[in-house]
Order: sequence, then C-alpha cells, then structure tokens
Amino acid sequence: MRKIRVGVNGYGVIGKRVADAVFLQPDMELVGVADIATDWRIQSAANRLPLFASTPDAQAAMAAAGLRPLGTLDELLERSDIIIDTTPKHVAAGNLERYRTAGVKAVFQGGESHATTGHSFVAQANYESALGRDTTRVVSCNTTSIVRVLGALDGAGLLRRARGVLIRRATDPWESHLGGIMNTMVPEPTIPSHQGPDAQTVLPGLDLVTIAAKGAHTQTHNHYWTLQLTREASRDEVLDALRAAPRIAFIRMSDGLVALNSTIELMRDLGRPRGDMWEVAVWEDLVTVQGDEAFLTYQVYNEAIVVPETIDAIRALTGTAPDAATSMKITDDTLGMRSDFLRPAESPR
Amino acid sequence: MRKIRVGVNGYGVIGKRVADAVFLQPDMELVGVADIATDWRIQSAANRLPLFASTPDAQAAMAAAGLRPLGTLDELLERSDIIIDTTPKHVAAGNLERYRTAGVKAVFQGGESHATTGHSFVAQANYESALGRDTTRVVSCNTTSIVRVLGALDGAGLLRRARGVLIRRATDPWESHLGGIMNTMVPEPTIPSHQGPDAQTVLPGLDLVTIAAKGAHTQTHNHYWTLQLTREASRDEVLDALRAAPRIAFIRMSDGLVALNSTIELMRDLGRPRGDMWEVAVWEDLVTVQGDEAFLTYQVYNEAIVVPETIDAIRALTGTAPDAATSMKITDDTLGMRSDFLRPAESPR
Amino acid sequence: MRKIRVGVNGYGVIGKRVADAVFLQPDMELVGVADIATDWRIQSAANRLPLFASTPDAQAAMAAAGLRPLGTLDELLERSDIIIDTTPKHVAAGNLERYRTAGVKAVFQGGESHATTGHSFVAQANYESALGRDTTRVVSCNTTSIVRVLGALDGAGLLRRARGVLIRRATDPWESHLGGIMNTMVPEPTIPSHQGPDAQTVLPGLDLVTIAAKGAHTQTHNHYWTLQLTREASRDEVLDALRAAPRIAFIRMSDGLVALNSTIELMRDLGRPRGDMWEVAVWEDLVTVQGDEAFLTYQVYNEAIVVPETIDAIRALTGTAPDAATSMKITDDTLGMRSDFLRPAESPR
Amino acid sequence: MRKIRVGVNGYGVIGKRVADAVFLQPDMELVGVADIATDWRIQSAANRLPLFASTPDAQAAMAAAGLRPLGTLDELLERSDIIIDTTPKHVAAGNLERYRTAGVKAVFQGGESHATTGHSFVAQANYESALGRDTTRVVSCNTTSIVRVLGALDGAGLLRRARGVLIRRATDPWESHLGGIMNTMVPEPTIPSHQGPDAQTVLPGLDLVTIAAKGAHTQTHNHYWTLQLTREASRDEVLDALRAAPRIAFIRMSDGLVALNSTIELMRDLGRPRGDMWEVAVWEDLVTVQGDEAFLTYQVYNEAIVVPETIDAIRALTGTAPDAATSMKITDDTLGMRSDFLRPAESPR
Repeated sequence: MRKIRVGVNGYGVIGKRVADAVFLQPDMELVGVADIATDWRIQSAANRLPLFASTPDAQAAMAAAGLRPLGTLDELLERSDIIIDTTPKHVAAGNLERYRTAGVKAVFQGGESHATTGHSFVAQANYESALGRDTTRVVSCNTTSIVRVLGALDGAGLLRRARGVLIRRATDPWESHLGGIMNTMVPEPTIPSHQGPDAQTVLPGLDLVTIAAKGAHTQTHNHYWTLQLTREASRDEVLDALRAAPRIAFIRMSDGLVALNSTIELMRDLGRPRGDMWEVAVWEDLVTVQGDEAFLTYQVYNEAIVVPETIDAIRALTGTAPDAATSMKITDDTLGMRSDFLRPAESPR
Repeated sequence: MRKIRVGVNGYGVIGKRVADAVFLQPDMELVGVADIATDWRIQSAANRLPLFASTPDAQAAMAAAGLRPLGTLDELLERSDIIIDTTPKHVAAGNLERYRTAGVKAVFQGGESHATTGHSFVAQANYESALGRDTTRVVSCNTTSIVRVLGALDGAGLLRRARGVLIRRATDPWESHLGGIMNTMVPEPTIPSHQGPDAQTVLPGLDLVTIAAKGAHTQTHNHYWTLQLTREASRDEVLDALRAAPRIAFIRMSDGLVALNSTIELMRDLGRPRGDMWEVAVWEDLVTVQGDEAFLTYQVYNEAIVVPETIDAIRALTGTAPDAATSMKITDDTLGMRSDFLRPAESPR
Repeated sequence: MRKIRVGVNGYGVIGKRVADAVFLQPDMELVGVADIATDWRIQSAANRLPLFASTPDAQAAMAAAGLRPLGTLDELLERSDIIIDTTPKHVAAGNLERYRTAGVKAVFQGGESHATTGHSFVAQANYESALGRDTTRVVSCNTTSIVRVLGALDGAGLLRRARGVLIRRATDPWESHLGGIMNTMVPEPTIPSHQGPDAQTVLPGLDLVTIAAKGAHTQTHNHYWTLQLTREASRDEVLDALRAAPRIAFIRMSDGLVALNSTIELMRDLGRPRGDMWEVAVWEDLVTVQGDEAFLTYQVYNEAIVVPETIDAIRALTGTAPDAATSMKITDDTLGMRSDFLRPAESPR
Repeated sequence: MRKIRVGVNGYGVIGKRVADAVFLQPDMELVGVADIATDWRIQSAANRLPLFASTPDAQAAMAAAGLRPLGTLDELLERSDIIIDTTPKHVAAGNLERYRTAGVKAVFQGGESHATTGHSFVAQANYESALGRDTTRVVSCNTTSIVRVLGALDGAGLLRRARGVLIRRATDPWESHLGGIMNTMVPEPTIPSHQGPDAQTVLPGLDLVTIAAKGAHTQTHNHYWTLQLTREASRDEVLDALRAAPRIAFIRMSDGLVALNSTIELMRDLGRPRGDMWEVAVWEDLVTVQGDEAFLTYQVYNEAIVVPETIDAIRALTGTAPDAATSMKITDDTLGMRSDFLRPAESPR
C-alpha cells in the first residue's frame, strides 16, 4: 500500500516534532518540510530532512546560507497528499486557499480559529467526524488536554460542570531570550478565557469556564480544576474514568514527582526525544472527591501534546484508518506512549 | 491617656513592618524590638529602634557585632503591655507560656495554628470577639485576603460556595538567594490546601475549598476564584459588595495594571514605604458574573497585608478601641490605606 | 534668587525619579512633566505634578482619560529654563532641535550617543567642562558606575588597565511582563561591548575593555573587574582611593549582604523612595589585590544611579553652582546619599 | 578480551549519565548502579539497570517500595573492577577506604578535593599520568572546561595569563523546586574563586584567576575570559589553537545561537540523550583579539561535560587504553561528539 505523502509547512516547535513523528509512522512518508528560516534551527535539520523554502525569497536566502532547498512550497505541495501547516498564527489561515487550489488536504494547528476549517479535532473525541474531510484543525495544547481529561469524565457520565484555572508557561525554552516574563504573573485580560469555548468546538455539550494566566516558567502548562459531578461519586470512580481514557498518564507526589520540573526531568530520564511528553500527566494522588465535587491538577507539555493528534488527523483526513482506535494504536505504539510512567503497564484497555 | 506599650519579638519581614506601623499610631509606643540576628537586617535598624536581644546568646553576639541591645526579651517584656510575636513558625508557639508568665498580652502570626491561642483574628470580621483577650492570632496573608473578599460577599448575602486556586509567591525578595524555585511550579501536595479551613477559623460558615501552588515569582500571591452565589445577581451587586468592604482596593486592566509587577511598581510610585500594599487588590474589570456564578482575581501583597490587622489586634486585646470601625479608622488613616489607587476617593463609607 | 525652572519630558523610569529629585532641590522648581501615556503611570502622578502632553495627540488622549494636562510640550518649554529629556532612545535625539529653537537648555540621557550633544557628563569627572553649555548627555547607568569607580582609582594614580564583565539586569521591574528573558543569559553579540568606549567619552585616557551580557534578573547590574594597577599596591591603598571618591558606598558579605537582592532589600529598609540606590555599591570585602592586580565587584541600581548626575547637570548647564563639589553637596544632602549603608558616617571628606 | 566491569555508586545527575555512557562503550560492562533513593529517579531506571542499594537501610527501603535491588554496595564492589563514585560531596571521600579494602579502583568527581586521591584528571591534559593508578578525581564541570580551553591555548604556546568571570547556573533543572535563587545574582564570597587553583591541579603552570557568581538560570555555566597572550597574535592563530583541541565545539551568534537557551534547544534538536552537550561550546564570532590580548566566551553544560572524562578515566586507571588519543577516540565516537554542531565535520584531526 502506498504511504501517505506528508509535507510540513513551518519547522518550528510543533513542525519539527510532527516531522519526527511522521518518520516513525509505518504508513507515512515525509516528503518535505518548508520554512523561511536559515539559521541553526534549519541548519541542524538540513542533513536529515528534505528541505523546501516556504517562499521564493526564502529559497534565495537559504541558498545564500549554504542550504540546498529542493524547491518552494509549490513543489512541496506537488509531492504531498496532505500538508501539516504549523506556520505562525497570522500566516496559516492565508495558506488555506493555496492548499485547496493545489488539491492537497491540510491540517492546521490550534492558533487558527475553528472557523478557518469548520472542524476541530481531538482524536479520541471526534476522529470519525473528520474522516475524508479536506481540512481540520488540531486544537491547541491547552484545549487538547481539556478534551482528553474532561472528555473522559463526561464520557463516563460523571461530569456536570467544570471550572478551571490554567497557569500557562510564559514562552517556549528556545525563545525564552525574547519576550518572556520575569518575576511576575500575567492574568488573561478577560474571564472567561478562550480555552473554554475552544474545547466546546470539539465537545459542544461541556459546561465549562476557564480562567487563564501566564506564570514565570518556560515549560508545561498547569491546570487546576473544580468539577461538579452529576452525582456523588467515589474517588475510584473518577480515577477509573481517567485510567480508562487514552493519552492520560498518572504521576504521583508520593513518587517524588512534586513539581513541574520533576516530570520534565523524568521525560529526559525515560529517553524521550527532546524530553517530550505527549500524555496529559494527571497527579493521581491529588485527585480529590468530596461528595459530588472533584478536584484535580495536571501538567500539559505544550510543545508536544498535539503531535499524536496531528498524526491521527492525517489518517482521518486521508481515510487511511477507519476509526480512532485503529489510528491511535499505531500512533501511540510508535511514539511509545504510556498510561503510567513508573508502574508496569496494566492489562490492555 | 497612656499609650499602649508595644514590643515586637522577631524583626523579620512582618516584624519590621509592624514596628514601623506602631510608630505611626497615636495611641501606641514602640518600646522595643527583639531579634537574634546581628547582620545588616538589624544594623540598618539599630539607630532608630530600641533594640533587644531575644536570647542571652544573641545579646552577646550583638555586643560583639558592635550593637548595643538594651537587654534581652525579659527586659522587653517588662516594658511591654503587649508583645507582637513575629518569630519563625517553630519558635513562636514556644514563647506563649513565657508571655503568660510575664503577664503580657500577645499577638501571634498566621504561621501558628489556631489552637495556639484559641482565637484567630481579622479586624473587619471578628474584632469584637477579641476584646480583652490575652492572646490572638492574626491569620496569614492568604487567609486574611480570603476573609476580606469572601467575607464581603458573604456579609452581603451573596455567597453560597467558593472554590479558589491560590498561586503563591515562592519566597520573599530578601531571601530569594536561598530556597527559591526556578522555572517551575510546585503544587501543594494535598487538595484541599490548608487556607480554606484556616479562613473558617474566622468565618466558620463559609463553604470554601482552596487549591494552592507556588509560582516562580517572589512578590505577591494571586488568587483565582469561582463563586457560587446564593442567587442570580448582577455584576454591580457583586462590585458594590466589594466596594463597600474595607481594605479592598480596585485595580483595572484597562488602566494598564495588567500583571503582578505593574501593581508592585504602582506602590513604589505612590511612595508607599517599602512599596507595601496593605489592601487586597481586586481586578475590577475581571470581576465576571454569569447567572448565579461570579469569577474574580486579586493580588495579595504577602509581606504587608497583615500589618493593619496586627495593629487592630493590639487595640482589641488591650481594649483601647471599642469596635472594629474605631480601630480600623485610626489604622487606615495613619497608613494611608485606599479603596482605589487611581480614582479620587469616594464619599466615606 | 530665582529658582531654576526645570521641565521633564518623558515620565518613565528615569523621568519620574528626576522629577522627584528636582522637588527636593532648594534651587530648583519643577514646572512640569510631559508624556504621552494615559494609564496608571501618569494617573498616579497626576495629582501631585504639573502635567503636560508631549504631543497634541497625547493631549487629546489625556483629556479623554480624565486627565487635565496644562498644555503640550511647547507650553512646557515656554515655562522652562532647562528640559530633562528622558524620552525613549529613538525619540530623544529628534527633540534636540526643538529645544534649541525654544531657547531651552537640555540634558539628555545615556540612551543617546555622545555625538548628539558633543558632551558627556559625570559630575565628579567633568562637571566644570559642562558649565554654561546648552546641552549635555548624562551617560548611562553602567557607564556612570564605571566612571565613578575606575575614575577614583585613575585619579589616585593607581589604574593602568581595566577589563570588566558586566552582567546587566534583563529588563526593569515595571515592564518585566514584556520582553524579559527567562532561564538563560544573553551575551552581547560583540566583544568589546559599547560601555568601554562610552566611558572614554568622559575619561578619554582610560584603557578599558568591557564584555557584557544580560542575566535573568530584573534589578541592578553587577560588574566584575580585573584591574592592572600602575604598580604593586596594598589593598588599603585601593580601598582608600575608593573610599575617598563620592557616590560610592561600601557593602560587605560579612554583614550578610551576599547577593543582589540583599542590597535591594536594604534600600527598602533604609526607607529609600522606591527603594532607590544612587550610590555604586562596592563589596568591600571582595576587593582583592594581588601584586599589581586588583579585582572587585559592585552593584549598580540602574533605575536610579543617574538621577544625582542629572541634577548636577542642571546646575552645570545653568551655571548655578560653580563647581562639582558645590553642586554635589546639595544633591547628595537632599537625597541622603551615603558612603556606607551600615557604618556610622566617617569624618567629612 | 574481557570487558571492564564498571559499577556506579550514586545515581544522580552525573551517575545516571555515566551509566548510560558505559552502556555505549564496547570495552565496558555496567555491572550495577547503587543508590539510596527509592522514588521516581530510581523507579524509572529499575527496569533497565542492575540495581543495588548503597546501604542495608536503603536495601530495605527499596524492597518496601517494590524495587528489587540485587544487593548492597558490598555486592556491587565484588562484581566491579572499578567504581565510579558520584555520591554527594560529604559522602564520597568516606567511601575511599572501603573501595581500597575491596580492591576496587575508583574514580571520584570534582566535588572532592584533589587531596582525596592525589590525582586530578582531564583526559586531554594528563591521561597518561593516571595510567595504572588506583584512584583519580575527574575535576568539576567548570574546571574541566577551563582545562580544555586554556589548555589548548597554553599548549599552542599562546597563553601567558588568564582572568575569568564564571557565571554559574544556580541549580540543576531536576531540583530547581528546591534551593534555587530567584531574580538575583549571588557572587562567590571570595575572590579568587576556587576554580583557578582547581585547574592548576591539572595544569600547574597556568597563571589564572577566576571570579565566580551564580546567575538566575538553571542550565549551563557561562565563562567570560580576558587572556594575556605571550605575544601579539592574530585571531586566526587563536581560533586554530581552539579548533585543534578536542572536545571544544564552535557555535556562532551569526547562526542565531545568541543565548544559553538557543544552544540548549539545539542539543534537543540534534537528538542528544537528555539534551546533553559534552563539548565546551565556544562562541567563535565572539573570539576577539586585540594586540596581545584575547577575549572569549563559552558555555558549559554542567550536567554532562565530565561524562566523557569519566569514561576515559576508567580506561586510564585500568590501563585498557595506552594513551589519551586511543581512549578519547572510542569515547567520542560512541557519544557522537562534534567539533562543530552545524558545519560539516572537518578532516580528521
């Protein structure tokens, strides 16, 4: 069977991880990545990736920098069945028409609005609704984590209402010499923040309100939730619902994983590429249930969490896996995704 | 009328501010501060404060450092009607018996448990219940802010249930070269955190749960609240309840006060001693009401917020002001407390 | 005698401090400050300062924000003998011609190049050369500190060559929610950095090379120097030369002042407005002499160190104090400048 | 040929990296790692490493935590030809006698004093002098980098005197929730700092003085050097000397590697395990030569730089490679060490 020919437009935080993940998929071929940068970010990849320039100007600049792009975005589109657009917010939406004209399917990222493609994607929630579509949008890191966790409780019939406080990392490590925040917190200027409505583009029925702020750290978001349950429930019921859901992994204060940096170091110790964590890391021993309320906290590795969703979106649009379970199994196996970072794997779910 | 003779045991973050505030009170005299340190923290105060040594060892060390303590804690107690104990957590409770034996009333700080004195104090909530007592405990900075804000809404009959996320500063600026956190967040190891029950020592009826974590900044806590109201209410009703309460000041994103550091700089610009903010700073334009729910965010200047409460506690224990309003007016006038940092003062409340 | 009428154009980090310092001078009158902002930065000052708008647009915006500017920059210039330009880098140089046309003398700040005014100013080094000039430039915080410290050793005949590493604060506290750096250091992209040549605009004979970088903190620069002396010297000779120089204050590790934040807290404890330190704080016990080499470290409070120099520059341009000593005495007395923050003042120098 | 049986005592920042590196060596076998921890740090390794308990108490604790240690340190020593001691500073020296008694050679780390073993080791500088010894000490990360870089210039006959400012990372990422520094810098309390004399334990002839401080970041030290050369030299001569030396890699501002975090991200992009950088990264375009002086800046990845040295020390003590070149070639090939992270490898040196 012919492999899906995947192009990546934008070789940044998400783009480089998607490219690496595509490499690992047995049913995909990375036909190229396009970008406009010419510095270390591209130079370090030039030897191992088919490189294209996003624009003719970039092609000239790349050549001047000693790089040898194989063409421009046009040539990349010719070779691609599907393009993953990971360009910056103001650029991506403008590319949509171009992809349409070229007859190439396209996956956008969470920086774009739902309206851009009319479809928003989280694999475990709505894979099937994307089957055969021309375009979709993988929702943002924060929203993906919300859909995974709240979706798990909602799917188990436990969730009536969710109120969350999201403390976001201020900036990504690679760019933390630019535009970071220092010794402060920056609350979002409106309550509710946009993540609530954004999650509702995937799970329309959720009753949720989010408050967001930036914290003075560079890695991983940290969400704190107060959940009104549909009924009095036991802590085990809540834990079971989370445990049964994919792409959630438990961590524990009692194992010494007591702060965001502990989990980040654990990923390094586990040999994860770039130290990535694709799972939502829920603190199991902080899951607290009081009557018909539950409280929980989790950690979102914003640089990587949407990578598996993007891989699944490729299969959904191209129709090469018939359902979420089929696609997610391939994705999760190739990445080495886990449901618990320290305990032996449970029996298959 | 004879002034209340006030001693301060422990010249740290709180102790030095209490000493300064006592200086400003027309009905109080600072008879001395006691500590064990001999370094810049004491040297910078030695010229302008009557200095005592907390222990005989400290007295010798102070003398060796060229300081001239007027005696030890025993001598300070002899001269005091009341002692403000701002010593570290493990030290304070042990001093209680000593104060009793010396026949000196005592105010403890929030690091101590409620059980130590059997009474916990926030001026606007329960001043009268402390009248004539021998001891009380001014609750912690976080708890004080909770009692002020939630107490205002509760007093207005609006509050049914409160769920809060408290992002604490990691350490104080003076000691941020020791024991800080870097580029991470540290969630409290249990949910609920202790601040909820602590607030209930002052306002027993409140239904509240708090989740807490440390953020990577050194100044001011930041609280995020989801409030279940007793009924559908308008935003103005909520704002009015807050506006009517003492020691709460509004700030606004629309005035450019968009982050913790903005407010901190404003305090410096207002000429506040040490840049202190004794008020809880509530973001007025982030107060959001949806049906019977309200959401709000405020900033707590942890180094200073309990100072006015401590001053009022002195009057309550010594019975020198008959009610909260009388004491708080003196305290607030001498400190220059405000209900809005930028708008002209409203008519008196 | 008529007071010097001083206007301040630009009410930012430096401008607001200069305005406050002018208030304290017996021979000066603050006739107004001009700015374009309308937010908390101006609102907090509007009640106590004569406010002007830098531009007609700003005047309209200020009025719309409920502020009542007394006019635009033109009106401020009409009332001023001298204007202190503390506008941002790209704005200031463009104002020069306007000040000339208005017949108003002008003091610029270190963001401008030496060529803008043809004269660069540090009071103790070259006050007299500025007497009666129409314009000068107070050099930057880093350069001011270099001229004070190295100038002291040079003046004592001790300095042959200076090599320094300057670790700058990344951004100022008020704006640390914008454009800061996080968990990194950022070396200047060229060696030598510009501070060496900049110091030579005031002390042309100095043989010095500087290397600079930004560190991940928001308050105070920190300089590390390797000094080649003209001869073998004793540590006391070096200390005496520093002690004899104005606007340098000793701090000591042995007093517990062991990190940048310790000194910053000390300024708060000393009751300094905004916690300012106008002196260069040299660690006395880190001054090390080995043969004909000396090593030293000091701390530069970048937000405030040029304020006294700016005040002196006003007197120099207007010719109202005949020499540096006369002007500096008034400035230093009004600000409360010290040669040692903890030890009793020595006999007058 | 029988492989060298290597044990590692202490599975922390260095120990875990040494263990991983031993795995990669064709002539070594990892017979076990011993530690006293039972939390995630050990749990994440337990499946892939032969685990021992450093003490009988730890053995019991490990068993209680569900781990299955193969024995205590005694059993590990029985199986080892050589032990790498990466235990904390106060523990390591006390182990020396125990290793001697067991007849096991031992490599200590830079936290120990030179006197502990009487020999200090940097492969390229003095491999041969360690041949057949029972013990040595791999010097610290800072000292290793100094010996590599200054040793290169000294070996080329270019270096007369070196004066350096070392801005150290404050704490390691895994423990940055404990004991970090926030928004400050902390100068070492003495000048010169200990790194100068420490480098002289390997290169006794060097004339160098170091000044050190901690900066508010968690990854990589940053050194700034002023070098007095033996004569006027060209920039190319200096660059050639550095280029010819092993375990130094050039980075360039002009490639966009403009801050510590850029280089750290590059290591992640290069697929380095844990993002490690074993090379000293010298900014090529910041190397500046003026007459007989040179100035340069480099970055030291403190978590990993001593790992290759430790591997070489194993071969030196066991006499399994006759000279530095032989051992270093194996080490560098297995780790994938580079002389330039972005440019094609030069012809072999």
